[in-house]
Amino acid sequence: MSSKKYVYSFEEGNAGMKFILGGKGSNLAEMTRLGFPVPAGYTISTEACNFYSKTGKPPEGLNGEIGKHQKELESKLSKKLGDSHDPLLVSVRSGAPFSMPGMMDTILNLGLNDDSVKGLIEQTKNERFVYDAYRRFIMMYSDIVLKVKRGKFDRELREMKRKRGVKQDTELTAGNLKELVEIYKDIVKKETGEEFPREPELQLKKAVMAVFESWDNPRAKTYRKEYKISDDLGTAVNIQTMVFGNKGNDSATGVAFTRDPSTGEKKIFGEYLTNAQGEDVVAGVRTPKTLSDLRKELPDAYDELIASMGNLEKHYRDMQDVEFTIEQGKLYMLQTRTGKRTAAAALRIAVDMVGEGLITEEMALKRIDPLQLDQLLHPRINPNAKLDVLASGLPASPGAATGEVVFDADTAEEEEKAGKKVILVRWETTPDDIHGVIAAQGVITVHGGMTSHAAVVARGMGKPCVCGCEEIKLDMENQLFKVNGTTVKAGDIISIDGSSARVILGEAPLIAPSINPEFQKILGWADKYRRLGVRTNADTPEDAGKAREFGAEGIGLCRTEHMFFGEERLSLVQNMILAESDEEREGVTEKLLPFQRGDFEGIFKAMTGLPVTIRLLDPPLHEFLPNFTDLKVELAEMKLKGVNKDEIMAKERLLHKVRAEVEMNPMLGLRGCRLGIVYPQIYKMQVRAIMEAACNVKKEGFDPKVEIMIPLVSHVNELMVMREKTEETIKEVLAAKEMNILYKVGTMIELPRAAITANEIAEYADFFSFGTNDLTQTTFGFSRDDAEAKFLAKYLEDKILPVNPFEALDQSGVGYLVDTACKLARKTKPGIKLGICGEHGGEPSSIEFCHKEGLTYVSCSPYRVPLARLAAAQAAIGAGEDTTK
Amino acid sequence: MSSKKYVYSFEEGNAGMKFILGGKGSNLAEMTRLGFPVPAGYTISTEACNFYSKTGKPPEGLNGEIGKHQKELESKLSKKLGDSHDPLLVSVRSGAPFSMPGMMDTILNLGLNDDSVKGLIEQTKNERFVYDAYRRFIMMYSDIVLKVKRGKFDRELREMKRKRGVKQDTELTAGNLKELVEIYKDIVKKETGEEFPREPELQLKKAVMAVFESWDNPRAKTYRKEYKISDDLGTAVNIQTMVFGNKGNDSATGVAFTRDPSTGEKKIFGEYLTNAQGEDVVAGVRTPKTLSDLRKELPDAYDELIASMGNLEKHYRDMQDVEFTIEQGKLYMLQTRTGKRTAAAALRIAVDMVGEGLITEEMALKRIDPLQLDQLLHPRINPNAKLDVLASGLPASPGAATGEVVFDADTAEEEEKAGKKVILVRWETTPDDIHGVIAAQGVITVHGGMTSHAAVVARGMGKPCVCGCEEIKLDMENQLFKVNGTTVKAGDIISIDGSSARVILGEAPLIAPSINPEFQKILGWADKYRRLGVRTNADTPEDAGKAREFGAEGIGLCRTEHMFFGEERLSLVQNMILAESDEEREGVTEKLLPFQRGDFEGIFKAMTGLPVTIRLLDPPLHEFLPNFTDLKVELAEMKLKGVNKDEIMAKERLLHKVRAEVEMNPMLGLRGCRLGIVYPQIYKMQVRAIMEAACNVKKEGFDPKVEIMIPLVSHVNELMVMREKTEETIKEVLAAKEMNILYKVGTMIELPRAAITANEIAEYADFFSFGTNDLTQTTFGFSRDDAEAKFLAKYLEDKILPVNPFEALDQSGVGYLVDTACKLARKTKPGIKLGICGEHGGEPSSIEFCHKEGLTYVSCSPYRVPLARLAAAQAAIGAGEDTTK
Repeated sequence: MSSKKYVYSFEEGNAGMKFILGGKGSNLAEMTRLGFPVPAGYTISTEACNFYSKTGKPPEGLNGEIGKHQKELESKLSKKLGDSHDPLLVSVRSGAPFSMPGMMDTILNLGLNDDSVKGLIEQTKNERFVYDAYRRFIMMYSDIVLKVKRGKFDRELREMKRKRGVKQDTELTAGNLKELVEIYKDIVKKETGEEFPREPELQLKKAVMAVFESWDNPRAKTYRKEYKISDDLGTAVNIQTMVFGNKGNDSATGVAFTRDPSTGEKKIFGEYLTNAQGEDVVAGVRTPKTLSDLRKELPDAYDELIASMGNLEKHYRDMQDVEFTIEQGKLYMLQTRTGKRTAAAALRIAVDMVGEGLITEEMALKRIDPLQLDQLLHPRINPNAKLDVLASGLPASPGAATGEVVFDADTAEEEEKAGKKVILVRWETTPDDIHGVIAAQGVITVHGGMTSHAAVVARGMGKPCVCGCEEIKLDMENQLFKVNGTTVKAGDIISIDGSSARVILGEAPLIAPSINPEFQKILGWADKYRRLGVRTNADTPEDAGKAREFGAEGIGLCRTEHMFFGEERLSLVQNMILAESDEEREGVTEKLLPFQRGDFEGIFKAMTGLPVTIRLLDPPLHEFLPNFTDLKVELAEMKLKGVNKDEIMAKERLLHKVRAEVEMNPMLGLRGCRLGIVYPQIYKMQVRAIMEAACNVKKEGFDPKVEIMIPLVSHVNELMVMREKTEETIKEVLAAKEMNILYKVGTMIELPRAAITANEIAEYADFFSFGTNDLTQTTFGFSRDDAEAKFLAKYLEDKILPVNPFEALDQSGVGYLVDTACKLARKTKPGIKLGICGEHGGEPSSIEFCHKEGLTYVSCSPYRVPLARLAAAQAAIGAGEDTTK
Repeated sequence: MSSKKYVYSFEEGNAGMKFILGGKGSNLAEMTRLGFPVPAGYTISTEACNFYSKTGKPPEGLNGEIGKHQKELESKLSKKLGDSHDPLLVSVRSGAPFSMPGMMDTILNLGLNDDSVKGLIEQTKNERFVYDAYRRFIMMYSDIVLKVKRGKFDRELREMKRKRGVKQDTELTAGNLKELVEIYKDIVKKETGEEFPREPELQLKKAVMAVFESWDNPRAKTYRKEYKISDDLGTAVNIQTMVFGNKGNDSATGVAFTRDPSTGEKKIFGEYLTNAQGEDVVAGVRTPKTLSDLRKELPDAYDELIASMGNLEKHYRDMQDVEFTIEQGKLYMLQTRTGKRTAAAALRIAVDMVGEGLITEEMALKRIDPLQLDQLLHPRINPNAKLDVLASGLPASPGAATGEVVFDADTAEEEEKAGKKVILVRWETTPDDIHGVIAAQGVITVHGGMTSHAAVVARGMGKPCVCGCEEIKLDMENQLFKVNGTTVKAGDIISIDGSSARVILGEAPLIAPSINPEFQKILGWADKYRRLGVRTNADTPEDAGKAREFGAEGIGLCRTEHMFFGEERLSLVQNMILAESDEEREGVTEKLLPFQRGDFEGIFKAMTGLPVTIRLLDPPLHEFLPNFTDLKVELAEMKLKGVNKDEIMAKERLLHKVRAEVEMNPMLGLRGCRLGIVYPQIYKMQVRAIMEAACNVKKEGFDPKVEIMIPLVSHVNELMVMREKTEETIKEVLAAKEMNILYKVGTMIELPRAAITANEIAEYADFFSFGTNDLTQTTFGFSRDDAEAKFLAKYLEDKILPVNPFEALDQSGVGYLVDTACKLARKTKPGIKLGICGEHGGEPSSIEFCHKEGLTYVSCSPYRVPLARLAAAQAAIGAGEDTTK
């Protein structure tokens, strides 16, 4: 064990080592290697953290290695931790392979104690700065390592400001701060029973372990779950020489992006605070200044920063997010990483960089997260609407949302679970609020800027966010806020527009999104590279039209059941189900025919020239009937109320019939082609409606491409019989209309037995469409209606299942059956058309699987069509790691 | 087409041709070949029938072939159909590959018309006989070919007897019969508008087609469905020279078995009627005499019959059922076939024949239908009980049954569908009653003997039957019968004992069956040849003991849920489910523990030394709760009635909790190991109860072999987690008891995903048990609770599915998954123990499949254990056709 290397100096690493050194560590090493002004330091590897997570103790030899690197660092800088004349101070920062902003712990100014304080004053001649650093260190170390609540220190800081009659921290004098240091040390003594630790080596060792532990804190876990980051990666720990942005007005600290993370525009975008440490910017405690001010305040440092950022972007070939500190005029780069961005920015940056020759089209395609596109496809506020704008702030994350006001993260989570849409309103957000941001539709903060925690997290999630909305007067105690004379209480409806940074009273009217030119360009490239077709699931002409606009190449699943729910229709459907004889049933279906025909005409017109796969009626019939329990209750009540006998008898008859349709497990009951076999009138009517509609629109000059799909086949004979009946009806219609329409008849593969016997079923099918929703239900034995609430949430929480199989296709189980079915089907019909129309058709990892299986197309909801086009291209380009990321 | 041969003379065939010539035809050919006295004739093949069934017309060339063979027959006998001096008469009989007694049509005396009647009188000098034959022919031909109702003729016959003041048909004179012939011809004229056909060739041709058509009559279809005979086989048609058992008192006709078909005893067993045609015996119209009387009446013919039967049995090496006719002292053999027999007889005959050196043990084993064994394993009437015996008759089919009296087949069927047990009481049964016999628990007939239709069919089905119960006075109109002063109405409960031929008023007390020595011997042989182990599914010490007595080698499935339904327990279980906290839940499970432990102690004792596989709680929890709909109704009623508020609130709370447990598809919901994961307290309690019970009985000197089974695993992680928790609890118990008990932990493979990922799951399983009930549900997507009534019956009727997959394992779908799982599991653990515990474990074709898959054991209900032992032996011996059958 002792032969394993756990610690790397910045000179030893490079950008390719992010799984060992973390993102921050590997980039610090890379910048060091390239000669950027990086304060010296070393990194403890993620492997040490993983060892600690599993065993609760550091690996053997780690402390020795740290000691060795610490010595090297000290000799390089000719300074020593804790030295009473010229002390070295270091920061101890987490840094995982994937960025988890603010989720884990960081300790600054480590190495301070009552001795080194003197040394630092001797060196800096700046007592105020030194005591400011000392009080910050005591608070951070106590909070993170000693687990003393931060609030206890904050309270004393506020109290000190109050007593001295000042508003800003910067107005406190050296004497005030020195006094505060003593008060802080007393708090530690009182809370832990021990003195604040003096020995810098001990401080360092404990700080490293505390950072390891922060890998498993609840907010980090929540974040990883949301972003599907593996718990096994661990975090690295970076020990770096401190530089100080709080050494006076020639010092500053800030963060900056090489391009605008909201819009993608090619211009430096950043914020900083003079005389401050980095945490002040990120936490949004003071509202920061923009970089243009820095140009005026510290022009040399500014120029060097701009040059460095340009070089970094060229080197990494991607937009960079940097942290910098200026110590008495000298610039230090403390971090660089690929910057998070909105979907719109991602598209624009990718397109621009291809234009600039920085990256290729393939790289551009691979770089965009398909799931993020969703943001662009969501509605925005109608620009022509008259709005009751309450306040404005900073446009921290674009998009629009409406919801009930909530004032804390826990409530946001509860309400969301109860099915409500909420807008989270906070002074500022901290990493502890992460679950609230996940639960909310959008976020408003009173404080904080464009790079504050709330802004970064909301942009990552594609949720609208308005920051720095200072007009809002929060009254947490009474659960309300006041703004310009209006009072808004918890539960009131508001809307926010993250793009224009407006907070609006009530529900704002939304309009459908459209696709901008960069988006079009990316999708055009995607179409060039992808091999999978992309269709849509649509049941109405409107949805079909929208999907076509988004690039759908046909309808992969047109459900016919939704068409049965119109008011006039539903009672006909009920009569059809409850018919007492075949003749009666036939009579009622006859009346439904014109409705269905009209539906299909609209869809065929919207999709003219493109294939339309229509699934015959699928769900259990009782979905269309009154609820059995309700009927029983009504009947019992009627009897007690002494309603007249005829009414009771009528209700009893209805109850009797409805009871006959009730099933124990409707998902496994009389539905799909079983309906078609038991009640042939229904499918016959549907097939007639489809073919008559096709004939009618063809006469009008449209080009209908009919594909009829028989659902829920488990045995080849079901399809054989239904195909025969279907074709009989088709022939009747075509003969009556004296027309010819090409058509296909296929089936869904959505039951394990169908997959297993796909070679037999393929004999009678012109195409297969994998219904992976149902296939997932039967393969796992999970009822989707029940699983989520009853046990699936627990399964995901306990990691019994790695992902929700209803979201991402379970490749080793459900995927095995899909694979088996594809192979068997091709044995019978080598060129058989194979598609997928479960919701997995719009999920990137599932789309990649479909590409590998060589399916003909995926079909997904209209708003997922662009995503699917991109994901299909990414699958075709190949899953190779983009090492520049 | 014309080159295909459709007609074979008896000299051309042999016993191996039963699929072409039918059973009857091939055996007539065989007997002819061996020199037995068989009236000459020829057979039209089943292929001609199949052609006719499909196309509605005879194959080209058939009539020519028939004509040719008819000519040959006539020249061989020097007689001619329809000849006015020496006419040939023939019978036209159906004869399918598998015996379907009485289900299809037969026409005797064909060739008679007004001319040939004269010739026959000239030849026989027996006018009475000739007109008797003529009137029979007209009636049969009119009924079968011309579709004139038989009742119309019967009525005239009765009328004639009434007018002439006689009781028996035989008392009518030649003149009476001649008059009857004219009346019959008038009926035909009146009903069909045409004269009764005169031309014998036309008669023959039409009769053959009518027999073809009878293959598809409803009663034949019902019979084939019951006995799983394929509809594709078709029937052959046998044209055979008539011989007459009704030529006077030196003529007779009868049927006989070479051994007793009820007991298997080695003694000739038969019945006959003097001066009668065969149909009179079979239809049970007159109660026949036993063969011992024939010895006295016609000793020469008797001796020849006995000798022939002995030779036939030796030749076929199986018990034979023969039809014979004695015409004026000369014996003719009209049919031989393997005799149907009760299960008891089958065992005795098989054992005796092995003893006699006629057959080998393997042949004996293969010859017994495992399904038939069921008969022997059903309860019989307690011999010590005091019974209210109403009447006695003939012991036509052994066994005992209780049910409500019904008087016709349709009602029997209806009542059975409504879930009632019925006893069918009839004058006599005809093939039209077949559906009633299927539906009834047992059958009583007033008329008819041991070889009557009711007796044969009931024996075949293993249902008790009492025939010839002449004391019973039926009053069909008033739906009652009177017997010895007691009146029994439709719906009254009676019992019958087919072994002792008693009819008993009320419900007779039954006792459990035991296994007789022949049965033991056969099962001993079975154990010698089989390779599959046989276990049982048992949840109580009583069932376990019974199964052990029947030879079970362990428990393959001990369900723990049934143990939760005791009155005292159920309320604890409800409290457990509705507990509001984990502590509360733990407290209640603690109270359930002693009950469960007691259950397991009893089972371990009963099974000492043999493995006991205990499945942890499997069904959805709401099965233990009050019904949600009922609660809603109760609450609505309470509110209307103005019950006090506290009671309503309590009810509302209960309703609220029960609603939380209601699932859309409980079969796919929170059950199986999902329960164990979500509510760990329940499984923990069960594991404790199991291990404490094992320790306790071990202390008492028993030898418990514990196997704990985790149900409904879909992903390896479920088993991994549950195994870990299970072993934790086991270790706690063993440590506390300071004992060591060997145990195994395994899982059920009952979901497609488990089968597909069996290699992963096998890592954590000491054994697999295939739960093919659930696996069938998810593989097909069929809910067993719903499928049967809603669509499965229709599927079977329409032949969409060849068999009910819940009865016989679907080898191409479910079997494919079992096969996949076996292969994958063995890759991980070559010697892994694999069993099956679905109901398929007691079904012969499924057992054969399990044998081929190399499973370790099958597990079935206690009463199926002997069947499984035999079926396993048959599978091991091999599925080769037993050509002697």
